[in-house]
This record gives sequence, C-alpha cells and structure tokens, in this order.
Amino acid sequence: MVRRRRMVRNYRTDPVDPAVVDRILEHAVHAPSAGFSQGWAFLRLDTPTDVARFWTAATPSGGGTDAWSAGMRRAPVVIVAMSCRRAYLDRYAEPDKGWTDRDESRWPVPYWHIDTGMAVLLMLQTAVDEGLGACFFGIPPERLDAFRSEFGVPDDHTPIGAVTVGHRAADRRSPSLKRGRRRVDDVVHRGHWGA
Amino acid sequence: MVRRRRMVRNYRTDPVDPAVVDRILEHAVHAPSAGFSQGWAFLRLDTPTDVARFWTAATPSGGGTDAWSAGMRRAPVVIVAMSCRRAYLDRYAEPDKGWTDRDESRWPVPYWHIDTGMAVLLMLQTAVDEGLGACFFGIPPERLDAFRSEFGVPDDHTPIGAVTVGHRAADRRSPSLKRGRRRVDDVVHRGHWGA
Repeated sequence: MVRRRRMVRNYRTDPVDPAVVDRILEHAVHAPSAGFSQGWAFLRLDTPTDVARFWTAATPSGGGTDAWSAGMRRAPVVIVAMSCRRAYLDRYAEPDKGWTDRDESRWPVPYWHIDTGMAVLLMLQTAVDEGLGACFFGIPPERLDAFRSEFGVPDDHTPIGAVTVGHRAADRRSPSLKRGRRRVDDVVHRGHWGA
Repeated sequence: MVRRRRMVRNYRTDPVDPAVVDRILEHAVHAPSAGFSQGWAFLRLDTPTDVARFWTAATPSGGGTDAWSAGMRRAPVVIVAMSCRRAYLDRYAEPDKGWTDRDESRWPVPYWHIDTGMAVLLMLQTAVDEGLGACFFGIPPERLDAFRSEFGVPDDHTPIGAVTVGHRAADRRSPSLKRGRRRVDDVVHRGHWGA
C-alpha cells in the first residue's frame, strides 16, 4: 500500500460515500501525538457549495483556471487539516510534564505540525484503501486570512494543508516525479554521517 | 493496522533481522514530499556500540536510569530521522517552481518537518506489520550539539526525532493515554468551525 499511494490531481465528480469520509476521519485521529496532545482539528467540506467556498477562499484568484485547478476542483470532498500549537504548550505545562514556562524553545521541532501531518498521511492511506484518490496540498500564506474568515477558523489553529478526496480520473503524474526518487543508500547513513 | 499501532517503550534485547530494518527504511523513502523534494536523511544505528553512542549523546545524563530509559535502551535498533530545509528551498527555486528568492515566508508551514514526520509514521507502521515494536521520541534541544558532533550530522539537517525498533517486551502504556482520545465529533467541523 505504501507503494500504491500517490497524489491524485484529477477526479470524477460523482460523490464519495459519506461513510468512507467518516472512516478517513476516524483514522486521522489515530495518529500518534506528543504527550497524546492531539492538537489537531479537521474541516470537512463535502457539499458542492462548501467545496466551492473552499476554492474561492483558499486559492489565488478563486481557484484558477489551469489544468491543476480544473482537475482538483472536481473532487467532491476537501478536508483541511489544522494544527494547534497551544494544545501542545498546554499539555506540556501539566504536572506530569512540568514545562510551566510554556517556552517553545523546549521543543526541538514543531510536533503540532508533524503530528497533524501524520494524521494527513493516515487520511491519504485510508483513501487508497477505499479505492479512492487523494491529494495533499498547502494553502498559500496570502490566502490564510480569507480561509480563516470564510470558515471561522480561530487564530490558534493553523491549516497545514488540505486533502482532496474523490474517485480517480485519468491524470498526469506530477512533473516533480521526473526528479526521481532518492535511493535508500543516498539518504541512509549507518553509524556515522556519510557511512 | 491504524488501530494496532502504538508506541512501545520496552524491548527484548535480541537483534532485529537486518532485512526488516532495510524494509523499514525502504518504506520511509516512499513518504510524500512537497515538490518531491525528499529533503530527509536517516541515521541507522544497529550495533550495540552505535546504539550506546546514541543514548550517551542524545539524552540527558547519557540516557538516564529511569524506567523509560531502561526499557528504551534495550531496543537493538535506533533510526534518527532528519529533515533538510535547504533541500526544499533549493527545489522550489528551480524553474518550474520559481521561488528564486528562497523566502521561507512563502511556506505556510515547514513541510520539511511534516514530510519527514510522514516518513517516520511509515517506519512505525512497517515495524508493526513486521510484528515488532517501535517508539518515536524527540532529541532534547540541549543535546542537539552533542548528537551532531557524535555522528557528524551537518548543520543543514535537523533531527525531528528518533525511532527505537525491536521485539516487544511487556510495557506500561503511556500515562498520557489516560487523557483519553479526543472524539471525532470534537475535532471535526463540517462546513464551518463549530459545526
């Protein structure tokens, strides 16, 4: 399944069974999280109206007219994944962790984003398991205010990206794939960097 | 499998088949990445000496003597996952992306960490599929220099955390789990925040 998963950027317009969307979201909340903080939230958009609102708010010029946008906009479901840093700072200020200063420099990396990203991967995998296609993509920073405003997203939640879900249509593979996959031997170091 | 996966913090000391570690790493590099940047690297530590070097360098007081450390140190394999922001800035400065200013504010969130986190989840899942246990945990910021120095990790790679891999021994479930899993209905908003 690891090898079958890839981003799908073109969809048929027929709807996705709501029970499948339920399962995708049930899997998302089984992602691991630091201190079991679970600092995440998901915006489920699964009506033509809500999906259209998303594209208008969250993409340049209301979604564009290029081939990417045309294919992506056909997806009947969009799920936006959001991370909540505050939930992590709150969790680690509790007595069993004791970081009461809530100092972000204690965190080697922002696990709120990483854990929410793991939830996204579980959604992508579940879509594949259900015979559907899915694609994860970012919301450009310049559209963040419009997105928040349209859907009432509070300032303490940051969208890490959106996932389209739908029935796969023929699509062009990402041109980025021409770069080639890095070989395991090129990215794995054994015992010491360079070894 | 999503539901079977959990962090395992105590291990038997018998070795892990190196072919299994190979498969774990082969799956890791099938994580998705923005622009197929693949800005990640993995440090594979699978000898008693290398694993001991890891605990000495990367944890307070050389690994501690608490129950957590005692169980974790028995794991015969540690894989450290590292993200490389530079690879993403380089990739998106290429002609098809065109962000030649390499301005980090173009990025809504640090996808280098998120993508490497997805690679980590694939490692955790593969360990479960192979009948093994695994645990993902961070390297404290105050140990970063010692870790880099011990293993020759360059400054443009940031460890997002380490994964222990081994045969499961009886362990105490994380006390954090007592917090309870957040219900899907509490974290999913439909059409608008709060709905």
